[in-house]
Amino acid sequence: MSGARRPTAPGQETHRETMTKRYVGIDLGGTNLKVGLVSAEGKVLRRVSIPTQASRGPAHVLARMAAGVRRVAREARLRLEDVSAVGVGTPGPVDTRRGVVVFAPNLPGWRNIAVRRTLQEALGRTVVLENDANVAAYGEFRCGVAGAVRDLVMLTLGTGVGGGIVLDGRLFRGVADTGAELGHIVIVQAGRRCGCGNRGCLEAYASATAVVARLQEHVDAGAPTCLAPADGRRRRRRAPPLTCEAIFHAAAQGDALATRIVEETAEYLATGITSLLHVLNPQRVVLTGGMMGAGDAFLNRVRGRVTATAFPRAAAACEVCWSTLGGDAGILGAALAAEAFDRTGQPA
Amino acid sequence: MSGARRPTAPGQETHRETMTKRYVGIDLGGTNLKVGLVSAEGKVLRRVSIPTQASRGPAHVLARMAAGVRRVAREARLRLEDVSAVGVGTPGPVDTRRGVVVFAPNLPGWRNIAVRRTLQEALGRTVVLENDANVAAYGEFRCGVAGAVRDLVMLTLGTGVGGGIVLDGRLFRGVADTGAELGHIVIVQAGRRCGCGNRGCLEAYASATAVVARLQEHVDAGAPTCLAPADGRRRRRRAPPLTCEAIFHAAAQGDALATRIVEETAEYLATGITSLLHVLNPQRVVLTGGMMGAGDAFLNRVRGRVTATAFPRAAAACEVCWSTLGGDAGILGAALAAEAFDRTGQPA
Repeated sequence: MSGARRPTAPGQETHRETMTKRYVGIDLGGTNLKVGLVSAEGKVLRRVSIPTQASRGPAHVLARMAAGVRRVAREARLRLEDVSAVGVGTPGPVDTRRGVVVFAPNLPGWRNIAVRRTLQEALGRTVVLENDANVAAYGEFRCGVAGAVRDLVMLTLGTGVGGGIVLDGRLFRGVADTGAELGHIVIVQAGRRCGCGNRGCLEAYASATAVVARLQEHVDAGAPTCLAPADGRRRRRRAPPLTCEAIFHAAAQGDALATRIVEETAEYLATGITSLLHVLNPQRVVLTGGMMGAGDAFLNRVRGRVTATAFPRAAAACEVCWSTLGGDAGILGAALAAEAFDRTGQPA
Repeated sequence: MSGARRPTAPGQETHRETMTKRYVGIDLGGTNLKVGLVSAEGKVLRRVSIPTQASRGPAHVLARMAAGVRRVAREARLRLEDVSAVGVGTPGPVDTRRGVVVFAPNLPGWRNIAVRRTLQEALGRTVVLENDANVAAYGEFRCGVAGAVRDLVMLTLGTGVGGGIVLDGRLFRGVADTGAELGHIVIVQAGRRCGCGNRGCLEAYASATAVVARLQEHVDAGAPTCLAPADGRRRRRRAPPLTCEAIFHAAAQGDALATRIVEETAEYLATGITSLLHVLNPQRVVLTGGMMGAGDAFLNRVRGRVTATAFPRAAAACEVCWSTLGGDAGILGAALAAEAFDRTGQPA
């Protein structure tokens, strides 16, 4: 998209009209719903995070989303009409053309929910709907580590593994909006069962959830670790649930099992990234989510494996890095997807 | 590319100038070098196939390529000036911007060979250089089974596994021309050694070569099959080398080992295709090469596995099919990549 300016870059032409425009980005999660007021230059001016209350159903959540938009506008002393457009990122498959959430895992009752129409009617503003990992990738492209990069891949390594792809400065969605489901590239034929029903998906190995599950299996089999009492099967009733953070901490302290699990995770992730380099040959692979807690030693191990396994030209063209946007990637990306649509009349 | 007309489609605007234009496509293989004269509408008007004589080095092969272009023009009673542009497809990584073959497997001495400059000087015509599987995909997009499809993936299942990607009617190359190396997506972490040096690549399982190697391993381990004497280790000295075709034939005759190998190949291929659907969400996956000898039962098995393992929306959006262009895909795609460049001033 030749018009995809990077508004924060120095020395670039800016129009007064663009400079005064404001957008709202909504990042819909199963637990919390984040709403941010964002400038056209990609600066988060105000943000709120409220419980999603997903158990009360889609209509309730949609009303909370609309209320969140009104609230950030009010707190910034803006009228709703001062918000040029609203972008929404939701988990799972969406139909971006119709503005419909096809299905949202972790959100009870979310099947074929007309998010765009509902919010447009409630707010009287233009609404753009996208998959949450896709907008995170777009936010990274516009405001993150990517610099002058126009081709990037993003992997969100959290409860699941989400993916987003930006090609030549535009969000890539595929013909039915189901491209960039990068957690479900298969890295082990007939391997571990994935939540999607298939076997061997990247998500079944490299999500934060999978890291915990893989370590727990070793504990259950009696492997020694500081993370469990000597007999792993009989953990104390009050023992806190095992977390990914605890595993990273144990690995950093030298626990052999935790170290092994973290190192194997780097290998699995590198395998997935190598496949992505051989399909897309991007300039950046940006990693984010709970796995960032594994730190730079983990990142460097992933980089080393990618360099060892990918074609030299593909590896040399690509930097694998952590996201620098943190928790703002979702609202930033959603707001800037709305900005792109407002500016060009085309999807981001 | 909005200007990427499909010249063979009925009822489409045609310009007299375009109708009279002629292009040459060159398909450079390790054994044979095919040269075809192709109309702007994608019709092969004349074709020759000559031995590559690769052992005599790049300069010799380049001279044979130039001679081939002169020959098809002469046989069609055209002057060289009547050829609007020449397209060349070569195996392995190419630098399309510089028109240089970076490295060509099976072609001794082919490292950093300036194909475009050499042929332009020899012929006085515009020359376009592309990877061979990429132009095959482009040929399929322009003239093959794809119909109104603008997003397709091609897998060439031969000695190796090549890949090509067309997105929104344009050839996708990645930032360093090493995208679409689809034979080297990893389907089995730490799996079979691939010719590229990595482990577990699709090519190490689903190329025609890999099918033979996988069966041979079972024969060597003593598995019974009509393809080898009872003691597989001591095949008669004069026994013909095992071929992929012989394996398909044996499977069709009910040989248990051959059947198993072919069925497993379908599983491996489906795993790779499922990954591609989850990255690219294309409308078609077109298969070509020696594995076409496995027939429609094989194709249907691949389709069934993809439907079972891919996301329903991605599987429903995509048809997996055999190529209908056969041996002409390479010269057609190369010629039409030259046509696209000649018409638009942009790469295909």
